[in-house]
Amino acid sequence: MKIDLLSKLRKQNPIAFNISNFVTVQDVANGINAIGASPIMSEEKNEAEAMIKISNSLTVNLGAFTEGQLDQIAAVTKYANQYNKPIVIDPVAVGAVQYRLDRCNELLDNINVAVIRGNAGEIAALADVEWQAKGIDAGEGDADLEAIAKALAKKRDCVVVLSGKTDIITNGDAVVRVYNNTDLFKLHVGSGDMLSSTIGTFVAIEDDYFEAAQVAATVFAVAGEIVANRMDQPLAGSFGPQLIDELHLISVADVEKHAQFD
Amino acid sequence: MKIDLLSKLRKQNPIAFNISNFVTVQDVANGINAIGASPIMSEEKNEAEAMIKISNSLTVNLGAFTEGQLDQIAAVTKYANQYNKPIVIDPVAVGAVQYRLDRCNELLDNINVAVIRGNAGEIAALADVEWQAKGIDAGEGDADLEAIAKALAKKRDCVVVLSGKTDIITNGDAVVRVYNNTDLFKLHVGSGDMLSSTIGTFVAIEDDYFEAAQVAATVFAVAGEIVANRMDQPLAGSFGPQLIDELHLISVADVEKHAQFD
Amino acid sequence: MKIDLLSKLRKQNPIAFNISNFVTVQDVANGINAIGASPIMSEEKNEAEAMIKISNSLTVNLGAFTEGQLDQIAAVTKYANQYNKPIVIDPVAVGAVQYRLDRCNELLDNINVAVIRGNAGEIAALADVEWQAKGIDAGEGDADLEAIAKALAKKRDCVVVLSGKTDIITNGDAVVRVYNNTDLFKLHVGSGDMLSSTIGTFVAIEDDYFEAAQVAATVFAVAGEIVANRMDQPLAGSFGPQLIDELHLISVADVEKHAQFD
Repeated sequence: MKIDLLSKLRKQNPIAFNISNFVTVQDVANGINAIGASPIMSEEKNEAEAMIKISNSLTVNLGAFTEGQLDQIAAVTKYANQYNKPIVIDPVAVGAVQYRLDRCNELLDNINVAVIRGNAGEIAALADVEWQAKGIDAGEGDADLEAIAKALAKKRDCVVVLSGKTDIITNGDAVVRVYNNTDLFKLHVGSGDMLSSTIGTFVAIEDDYFEAAQVAATVFAVAGEIVANRMDQPLAGSFGPQLIDELHLISVADVEKHAQFD
Repeated sequence: MKIDLLSKLRKQNPIAFNISNFVTVQDVANGINAIGASPIMSEEKNEAEAMIKISNSLTVNLGAFTEGQLDQIAAVTKYANQYNKPIVIDPVAVGAVQYRLDRCNELLDNINVAVIRGNAGEIAALADVEWQAKGIDAGEGDADLEAIAKALAKKRDCVVVLSGKTDIITNGDAVVRVYNNTDLFKLHVGSGDMLSSTIGTFVAIEDDYFEAAQVAATVFAVAGEIVANRMDQPLAGSFGPQLIDELHLISVADVEKHAQFD
Repeated sequence: MKIDLLSKLRKQNPIAFNISNFVTVQDVANGINAIGASPIMSEEKNEAEAMIKISNSLTVNLGAFTEGQLDQIAAVTKYANQYNKPIVIDPVAVGAVQYRLDRCNELLDNINVAVIRGNAGEIAALADVEWQAKGIDAGEGDADLEAIAKALAKKRDCVVVLSGKTDIITNGDAVVRVYNNTDLFKLHVGSGDMLSSTIGTFVAIEDDYFEAAQVAATVFAVAGEIVANRMDQPLAGSFGPQLIDELHLISVADVEKHAQFD
């Protein structure tokens, strides 16, 4: 794994355009800034093309869209494809709500995406696999997680990051598993959103999206694990600011020392 | 007071649907998650029924709605009534702005609510009592706070939580007062919103809404007091993350030890 | 510089109406509250007049508006002029996106503003000076920053705060430079937004907007510097809550001790 992509990211300081959900947008912006990219946000269709032109990647979080925003998302993603800016999709809660699944699949039918990042329930829903999802959480199920991730990667011809206790990253053929984790990620609303936007910062500076997604997932998981290991007890609220601290402080050497993957 | 409802909450991990205001939504989501429920948010009318069906309660915060969102709020609350999911209403600033008061009363005329949570100025406005409100703050007045809370509870046939230095919880007849408090609640924007959404997590697991509201108010107030007592000086910014820390860490025994009510 | 305006602010506790961008709104609200004012937010045109009437100033952040919100912004700013409530404008990213520059200039053509607060790229764009802007960041350029700020102040007949390593505050003739700073401001998304809303709290209690803007910029910069000086390493995430802590704790004596300006 080319963990020194983290150095490249910080050197290039790419502009990461994010269509975020309103729940976690501030953490997402601060996370992007902390790791070494520059976040820009917009909900206005009329500046979609201008925003894409100055951006190096686009991350679309479908966590809390409205019908009106779908128009803007359609415009922004179309321009991203036209100007060859890689797209990361976060299909929040598509495993729990049919309406979200339908809208997300319509979007994916019309654009090319670089990476889809979701939990098991979300990835399973997009891959048309039966899965028990409960609200925004991952749910539980018996299906083979790697097979599900591969199926979606092949269906949508993209990299898939299925995040959970173990993060599974696949291009449809090869699979990388990242074992770093902490339960605090589940306790902090927006951890998944931040992981997706972190992937967005790496695809902005590395054309091999499979490699970029692996490194992003590993840096993010190691940063969370470092923060958690410093705590005597799980601090659900303090974890957020400290995770952003660590995304800025963490070095390539730190990641290489702690990363556990195969 | 059945403080061990907190254990029931954590065991059942209910899904708490929140229509939040955009100012404090991230704290609200993290607070819900920290105490032991799962937050879901949505502003899209087309998924209103699906969201209500997977939820165990609905909290509607009227802190920053637009005309367009009122349609969605009408739809969501109608489905909540239809599917018997209890509704908590937070009538932000209805004491300061007539437009908000009118819209809130129209909403309350059309639905059944389990709990209304507001400060003195907001509860007084909904109860048609003269009150001096200043912006989003509670204002000051001479009226009998308990009488005001009871009047609204009877008018709307629901539980009322009038929060302030002392929290007053009433079903229209009986009254419980919770004396735990800290000035930091007023310094932290969103404390009231978090209290309302905390009530939303308890009505999700307890059909006796009067009991649920009492316990929610007590757990929340004690958590804030514990955080404040650990501080040498009032830390207006750090209070937010630390309150979320404590909402996760606090035990039934902690609450029982510190709770002051009658 | 009349640094004891900070005492006046805390004594008067003005109501600061903010049209914020959704990315940083919670930090903005908490910062306003912490320094000693009361924030109110609204996106609904129908309550524009009522909100302005109870407010002492209006801060309009153009960080993430949509076409629909421009209607509300037009209404709110018109009422602010009508009721003589001073307006602070934060022209986010007008240096990077022509659409934003056009909308901002249209707005400025139709209203009188007290203060415009932006970074070098934003102020240059509004002053019609060539400048290299990169995303939301300030960009770099060779033009004389003071001349740019003065040009805009004269063009729009208002006070201009050009924030950066050195903050430049001008009424078009006189110039004050504030040298307090920390790199953490750039690492924390929303620092600029918070500075603008802090200016909004000072113009709410002081009719000499040039004086008010100087004091606001100085208090804010000193608070950030104090927080940064307490840290062993740059904590990009913890800086936010701690800055809000300090905005509440900082005294006139603290500011007088640390302020560096001429």
